[in-house]
Amino acid sequence: MSESGDKSFFNSRWVTPPADFEQIDSSVLPSGFRAGAVHCGLKNDGGTDLGLVVCDEPGLTSSILLTRNAAAAAPIRVCRDHLQQDSIRAAIVNSGNANAATGEQGMSDALAMRDAAGAALGLESGTVAVAETGVIGVPMEMDKVLAAIEGLVGGLGPDGAVRFSEAIMTTDKWPKRCTLKSGGVTISAQAKGAGMIEPGFATMLCFVQTDAKVSRADEALRRAVDGSFERITVDGQMSTNDTVLLQASGSSGEDLPEGLLDAVLLQLALEIVADGEGATRVGRIEVTGAADDGEAELVARQIANSPLVKTALLGRDPNWGRIAQAAGAALAGSDITELGPDVISADELAGEQREAELGLKLDRGDGQAHVYFSDLTHEYIVINAEYTT
Amino acid sequence: MSESGDKSFFNSRWVTPPADFEQIDSSVLPSGFRAGAVHCGLKNDGGTDLGLVVCDEPGLTSSILLTRNAAAAAPIRVCRDHLQQDSIRAAIVNSGNANAATGEQGMSDALAMRDAAGAALGLESGTVAVAETGVIGVPMEMDKVLAAIEGLVGGLGPDGAVRFSEAIMTTDKWPKRCTLKSGGVTISAQAKGAGMIEPGFATMLCFVQTDAKVSRADEALRRAVDGSFERITVDGQMSTNDTVLLQASGSSGEDLPEGLLDAVLLQLALEIVADGEGATRVGRIEVTGAADDGEAELVARQIANSPLVKTALLGRDPNWGRIAQAAGAALAGSDITELGPDVISADELAGEQREAELGLKLDRGDGQAHVYFSDLTHEYIVINAEYTT
Repeated sequence: MSESGDKSFFNSRWVTPPADFEQIDSSVLPSGFRAGAVHCGLKNDGGTDLGLVVCDEPGLTSSILLTRNAAAAAPIRVCRDHLQQDSIRAAIVNSGNANAATGEQGMSDALAMRDAAGAALGLESGTVAVAETGVIGVPMEMDKVLAAIEGLVGGLGPDGAVRFSEAIMTTDKWPKRCTLKSGGVTISAQAKGAGMIEPGFATMLCFVQTDAKVSRADEALRRAVDGSFERITVDGQMSTNDTVLLQASGSSGEDLPEGLLDAVLLQLALEIVADGEGATRVGRIEVTGAADDGEAELVARQIANSPLVKTALLGRDPNWGRIAQAAGAALAGSDITELGPDVISADELAGEQREAELGLKLDRGDGQAHVYFSDLTHEYIVINAEYTT
Repeated sequence: MSESGDKSFFNSRWVTPPADFEQIDSSVLPSGFRAGAVHCGLKNDGGTDLGLVVCDEPGLTSSILLTRNAAAAAPIRVCRDHLQQDSIRAAIVNSGNANAATGEQGMSDALAMRDAAGAALGLESGTVAVAETGVIGVPMEMDKVLAAIEGLVGGLGPDGAVRFSEAIMTTDKWPKRCTLKSGGVTISAQAKGAGMIEPGFATMLCFVQTDAKVSRADEALRRAVDGSFERITVDGQMSTNDTVLLQASGSSGEDLPEGLLDAVLLQLALEIVADGEGATRVGRIEVTGAADDGEAELVARQIANSPLVKTALLGRDPNWGRIAQAAGAALAGSDITELGPDVISADELAGEQREAELGLKLDRGDGQAHVYFSDLTHEYIVINAEYTT
């Protein structure tokens, strides 16, 4: 597997980590964590497809954020309804099958996977999260999963982050992970997405471990996710399986440095956009002067998801009119006919750089928002039309 | 120019004209109408780019529907604010420049174009509609337009529908028009879209003429548009210039037969989808059992605009999971986890036929809606990314 996830770390102008941060070997987990992965057989290519991360500190804190998709997958419903979300000791994750749109059997399977992991780890099952990604509408091959759990638990180690990050991949072109230090605190994270797995759809998963003390994990995770995974779009599609998990062992005895979690999640979010299906460039659209932040976000998302803007990003076409049109569509019924090149920044569409910064200044109030997005390319069509069932 | 607009008429299983309808030569306009077109020079390829349609009956009725885009083009604002919408005698239309995002100069230009047409026709300028389509953000070459109007008016005739339908085209692959008879009534219509003009975006225009008496033109047009142009999507983008105009001369002395206008507009709307940028197939998604019709439409549009569903239509992939995912995204925050292949009809995605009928049965109420949409293809990317400014 490529190590480009390491190499590209913090190469975005949009990420500002704490000044004293240090990037270290991304195979290293913070104190108190172990991880690992095996090939259980859900993927046909022989790649690892079942991963586990566990915190050995019973007094840890944790928080988990789950997709709001109304057709949520079984693992989402298990985590939503049957998990002690503030003390999640372990997460078991498979790639190759999303266990989505699988009905009651899917729920039983997700619970069985969780229970087996809990038993093998000696943990109460209510402290084990489950996440899945891959094909939807296909029953789980539970015999394969259950047969592999013993070996998976036996192989866990403090150096398991590389294997874990690879096991959660679907059509990602590279594994996405990092380990950073800031002060006496170490934080590591592994993410996947927005890959495609036939015949399913993009899902993003992210697992974060730190030895910092995080007393208000929900608040910290919510803020960091609001600034990262909630700000990206590849194709405007909300997955049935999106999951972000933060576990904080507290082993370092120190608090989480300001901005560290935010920087890690934003970097991984940007890597997901850069590795979006067929993507070659990443755009950032910032809308200011909207009536309120909600309106600004609506406009920014309409622009970010416009196939006309996305193809302009690919074609290096500084076509500000497409931004005006998308903004006008988002605000249908209002009047923003004064829009022109004086209030729309689209020059970077034409640049050769990989990241393009776009702007739109409205004159309606103080609302602002920004969204990161990928371009729309031939490869997107190939991935999604030509990989048929 | 191709005559395929004629050949394909009423070849959709989704269009049901009145039983006694008869399709006649589409160059023929109903009694009381004249049309024509010239090349004034806005298009570089020498094609006609300035068209005019006029009703010679002062007692006509009319109705016009205009885009709700907040960045509406100058001609939209002229028609919205300075037009006697119930007695529109003429419409002057250019292709090659949308006169959108052109500020105050654009407004002056649209008014000047209208005034010149009115003067040449001997009509009050407030009874002349103006419509434009093409590049945005570029000033109009008004000298070319104004110099051509005299010749345009001189060449008007009752057989001008073919030339008029060609003059409103941008990147349409074929002109879209028809003339039908039902009882003693004749109706003709010309439409364009959803073509692309560098560096602008798709716009749909439609002009309808009939010699029927239509006392409640607004109501008739609103209903027909609700069932046709409001039900289609190519790329989810609302144009700054969309316009639909109905003119009824009343010359036949008969009322408009039930369903005739609806059938004509639906057929032309379906032709626009079929001629959508890069399109090879047309889908129809019907959502039933939603909480209300508004919710059904929200879900249907999310499905119709999903690039994953659009590429499945191209790839002939009966991937019902993508429909479930899009529906779940539309209803984020609710719970529709019981969705499965038993309530989603996706088989026709895999068929070889040009039109694919899809269905989704929810269990939330009596709301229903349907939307027609095109597939997403390589050609769409070529048109929108590779035709740079």
